[in-house]
Amino acid sequence: RINGDRLWDSLMEMAKIGPGVAGGNNRQTLTDEDAEGRALFQKWCEDAGCTMGLDQMGNMFARREGTDPEALPVYVGSHLDTQPTGGKYDGVLGVLGGLEIIRTLNDLGIKTKHPIVATNWTNEEGTRYAPAMLSSGVFAGMHTQDWAYDREDAEGKTFGDELKRIGWRGDEEVGARKMHAFFELHIEQGPILEAEGKDIGVVTHGQGLSWTQITVTGKDAHTGSTPMPMRKNAGLAMGRILEKVDEIAWSHAPHAVGAVGHIDVFPNSRNVIPGKAMFTVDFRSPDLAVITDMENRLRVAAEDIVEEMGLQIEFEKVGGFDPVKFDDSCVAAVRDAADRLGYSHTDIISGAGHDACWINRVAPTAMVMCPCVDGLSHNEAEEISKDWAAAGADVLFHAVVETAEI
Amino acid sequence: RINGDRLWDSLMEMAKIGPGVAGGNNRQTLTDEDAEGRALFQKWCEDAGCTMGLDQMGNMFARREGTDPEALPVYVGSHLDTQPTGGKYDGVLGVLGGLEIIRTLNDLGIKTKHPIVATNWTNEEGTRYAPAMLSSGVFAGMHTQDWAYDREDAEGKTFGDELKRIGWRGDEEVGARKMHAFFELHIEQGPILEAEGKDIGVVTHGQGLSWTQITVTGKDAHTGSTPMPMRKNAGLAMGRILEKVDEIAWSHAPHAVGAVGHIDVFPNSRNVIPGKAMFTVDFRSPDLAVITDMENRLRVAAEDIVEEMGLQIEFEKVGGFDPVKFDDSCVAAVRDAADRLGYSHTDIISGAGHDACWINRVAPTAMVMCPCVDGLSHNEAEEISKDWAAAGADVLFHAVVETAEI
Ligand SMILES: NC(=O)NCCC(=O)O
Ligand SMILES: NC(=O)NCCC(=O)O
Repeated sequence: RINGDRLWDSLMEMAKIGPGVAGGNNRQTLTDEDAEGRALFQKWCEDAGCTMGLDQMGNMFARREGTDPEALPVYVGSHLDTQPTGGKYDGVLGVLGGLEIIRTLNDLGIKTKHPIVATNWTNEEGTRYAPAMLSSGVFAGMHTQDWAYDREDAEGKTFGDELKRIGWRGDEEVGARKMHAFFELHIEQGPILEAEGKDIGVVTHGQGLSWTQITVTGKDAHTGSTPMPMRKNAGLAMGRILEKVDEIAWSHAPHAVGAVGHIDVFPNSRNVIPGKAMFTVDFRSPDLAVITDMENRLRVAAEDIVEEMGLQIEFEKVGGFDPVKFDDSCVAAVRDAADRLGYSHTDIISGAGHDACWINRVAPTAMVMCPCVDGLSHNEAEEISKDWAAAGADVLFHAVVETAEI
Repeated sequence: RINGDRLWDSLMEMAKIGPGVAGGNNRQTLTDEDAEGRALFQKWCEDAGCTMGLDQMGNMFARREGTDPEALPVYVGSHLDTQPTGGKYDGVLGVLGGLEIIRTLNDLGIKTKHPIVATNWTNEEGTRYAPAMLSSGVFAGMHTQDWAYDREDAEGKTFGDELKRIGWRGDEEVGARKMHAFFELHIEQGPILEAEGKDIGVVTHGQGLSWTQITVTGKDAHTGSTPMPMRKNAGLAMGRILEKVDEIAWSHAPHAVGAVGHIDVFPNSRNVIPGKAMFTVDFRSPDLAVITDMENRLRVAAEDIVEEMGLQIEFEKVGGFDPVKFDDSCVAAVRDAADRLGYSHTDIISGAGHDACWINRVAPTAMVMCPCVDGLSHNEAEEISKDWAAAGADVLFHAVVETAEI
């Protein structure tokens, strides 16, 4: 069994870096706080006897040697970056869970055949730089590194420049590493496990995602002196499209979700009819056909809305991944571990995207989930119990050690 | 007649300060650019033999002496601040029109009985600090100066601190000046004069305004893993309220307008269901009862929307003024001047708010309007012709000199 107290203490220690305003964290990718969190993780890994690798996307790889020089490593990890108003566990539990496995193996003096590599993937959240899971995506060959480097934040700062600025751009070629397997522990971020009273979610699939950034262009004009019939109100068109996003997602519920989290209107002045609205539609489903249907229907509906209003519209796909089926034998390793340890468990589909979704394309992959209070995540009030964290890390430990072979 | 070329050159010279991104201006109130514009205006006024007064709200008063030491001055002016993506004429024409009157009187060697004071009112636009017409409002006793000083911009910087920082906080008590009359020249910012082919709008009334800032509170949550029925999407509620604003304004058209220009959602991340949306509703009508009706209906509709969705809502009135009827004899002075000069004219109701709307409460006031291309304003593409500007300034000149008595 892993050391639940030590894992919890590390979680609380990491949460001191980039504190939020309401008990959570704001440690967004490639900020100074991200750099500080990385340095702490590196120190802990080195204290645990690991050597740290760093690739050109800033992905961190803390390696504990195995006994067989030929054996590929088993990777285990997640991400240390957070939402702007994020929780203390989303991602962090998976990274520090990986470290806890290594610490436990050290405590027990166990050597594994395959090396074990605790991993921190850069920019999983995708808030500052769309898309989410950017660096595991480059690792898996889904995006080119040049394209990733050119991603811009809201202030126009590029990913490549900011990665260099914070001092975490490594030399190692991205994706050069070969993996025996990859495991990721994550909080569920949804309500199912808690509602069903299960300790562990055995993640068999991940739902797919589509992010479409929409730009509606109308005409800036005075809110007072412009007659109603002459208005080209891009903000109003956006309001109508928000309603359609909801309607379309509901039409497929419970097999789909949809929302708009990112909204900017221009020039954003109380007495200027917005001449431009930019916002990103997030549609998800475990069924690719449903995602495609939602995208198509929204496109038609949005085009109708703006046409009727005499506005222009552009659609840009800024992120997306197809629904994922995880590796049968890795999934079985997770399920068996939960059984062996006597934890209640259920198979589950991940509602969120995870680095594991991309890594699954280049290595046998599975995920372990633990419950979170009220299913709440991407909120500073995100909460889990120490026992839930420990159970998740225990299952991760057993699945990883089983796969890495003693 | 005033010197139309000189007026135009001054307009173009001022427009070099705080250039926009598309040919207009971004010279928002209490920015470094505002300070630079003020300095240029002061220099021009002093070159024209005026003495500059500055009050504690940063209102500027360039005085040309009259022949009667007992006579109250005739004030004439508008504002030099602009929208973030504003035009070159909105406000500026009225300030530099006032200066042009003084320059013309100097050219002609004419002395008036009443002094003439060319005025620049601070923060007319209300973008950086709501409400609009803030400093003429304090001057007219509509707001206290302390309240005005405490207004915060989006970054939390207060009006009082920023006024001091740019070096334009004067010592003079605000509102201490007594006026014989006040005249304001402004571009129409609407399409009527151009459509009717009139040179001059004789402004008899100004429509009233109501700004209500609405805050909808839901719950930040993950866009992927939060089931549709568990969502408390503040952004979606806002979308529905945007539709209601439009519907309610249309129900009173053409005697009312309504729109939302300011929108912020939080935390504004693509994969976070917005837990909070803040936005400002702008309703206007020449009829106070219509404004009240629109406010009331929106309140009920918005409360219904959020109640059905299980969200919270707060309403804060952040600006407003009642419909205005300008002073009969000042209006007649404008109309007579246009007649005398042979300009075509029509009576008009101002769709926008103006400093004149507040000053009308403490002094006999009227406004002169000139057309603008396509009725477009609060847009960098705002345009007028040199002839339109000159005609407006000519009428202003004659109305002011008539009132100031030779
Ligand atoms: N786990 C998580 O919140 N990932 C961010 C990517 C997503 O939006 O699903
Ligand atoms: N003239 C003008 O645009 N004033 C700003 C105040 C308003 O929104 O009407």
